[in-house]
Amino acid sequence: MSRRKKSHQSHGTPNRPRLWGNHAVAAALDNPERKVLRAWATRDAAEFMQFPKEVAVTLADVADLGRLVPHDAPHQGVVIEVAPLEEAWLGDIVTHAPERSVLLVLDQVTDPHNVGAILRSAAAFGAIGIVTQDRHSPPESGVIAKAASGALERVPWVRVVNLARALEEMGEAGFWRIGLAGNAETDLKDALGPKKVALVLGAEGAGLRQNTREHCDALAKLPISDAIESLNVSNAAAVALYAASIA
Amino acid sequence: MSRRKKSHQSHGTPNRPRLWGNHAVAAALDNPERKVLRAWATRDAAEFMQFPKEVAVTLADVADLGRLVPHDAPHQGVVIEVAPLEEAWLGDIVTHAPERSVLLVLDQVTDPHNVGAILRSAAAFGAIGIVTQDRHSPPESGVIAKAASGALERVPWVRVVNLARALEEMGEAGFWRIGLAGNAETDLKDALGPKKVALVLGAEGAGLRQNTREHCDALAKLPISDAIESLNVSNAAAVALYAASIA
Repeated sequence: MSRRKKSHQSHGTPNRPRLWGNHAVAAALDNPERKVLRAWATRDAAEFMQFPKEVAVTLADVADLGRLVPHDAPHQGVVIEVAPLEEAWLGDIVTHAPERSVLLVLDQVTDPHNVGAILRSAAAFGAIGIVTQDRHSPPESGVIAKAASGALERVPWVRVVNLARALEEMGEAGFWRIGLAGNAETDLKDALGPKKVALVLGAEGAGLRQNTREHCDALAKLPISDAIESLNVSNAAAVALYAASIA
Repeated sequence: MSRRKKSHQSHGTPNRPRLWGNHAVAAALDNPERKVLRAWATRDAAEFMQFPKEVAVTLADVADLGRLVPHDAPHQGVVIEVAPLEEAWLGDIVTHAPERSVLLVLDQVTDPHNVGAILRSAAAFGAIGIVTQDRHSPPESGVIAKAASGALERVPWVRVVNLARALEEMGEAGFWRIGLAGNAETDLKDALGPKKVALVLGAEGAGLRQNTREHCDALAKLPISDAIESLNVSNAAAVALYAASIA
């Protein structure tokens, strides 16, 4: 496949993302809110997947499937084209939040592998949702869905226009907003308490923006050594979610 | 760049891996054990990097650098070709381990992004080394070094022929060997104690091999919900390292 040809191929669009891989596709088929527009699968994968009757499946070989997804994407024999999920609303989520709830807020985390892995950890540790700023977060995509391993279908994802305003809304709803910052003096575990919490993570390198920091109730750090500047952001999110889950 | 052309290009070999990106390259230059064979940089990056005098730097533009690394690799203006590090020896590491030490053991974790992120977390939480099985772990590479963000130079990496034998050696040296397994009954935090510990993680999907499980003193799980089968392996490693650091 030459570069020229590749540039003319579509691998899905933000309006019709393509998802691939067993976990991502099975979770999408299981999600009543997810509209599946098209499906392609090898004969084996089609049997394994048990597509619902209303989804028309085009049988394809591995090479055909490879052309439907970005280079080297591990499609595992199945690709679907879907409509993006309906947006989740912050008001709905904070209003119905249980007494002990964790929300994850991402300030300009753009890498889709990281966002996907973060969704997966959010599902694993029972976060009630993730919140991103619309202009600075990736659209739903196959890369996110694959890295999320099913969690894209299960974790409410709120996209807001203004992250500072969203943090105000969380504060008003009783969430204690903790910004993760490497230069903070408090350890995260000492900043956590038996209440609703919003964990706010910035992009690697840049960290939290000033205006985001100012909308947090506390800044806290993970207890890492001086040998390294920071953790990978998805690893930091996983550790923070774990710390909150045992607080 | 066409596929045909790409297949003829070298982006470094296991014997002479290429590293790129500010953190990875700066850490390599700082490491007295690392032999730098060649270097290419943009004029700006060359100034920023402050290469030691003995390293001859070829000035290059961004497009030239792009051809020295895999497609889309974020080289940040600097690429070096290096000799792999001398192997670390398990005997040396366990003999000199402090009273409270954590070793990380990877059973067939092959994805270089994950191995790199795990090295980064190992450095962050002060693990004394990682141990992998030679035949089932990736060689040093630019992808690992970039994901490790400098930690490839700082965390001793032991490659063993036989992981079961290595676990025996750890046990004899007083390490409590905890295998992470989703179906274990004990929570990791209840399996940890105030002693030397080896945390053993398997590949995603496959998990720990039977023979690896049998060489652990205990099996333990991370407290994740049923909503998702498992964490990404680098996220699981980060959480386990954090849990050990606060035990």
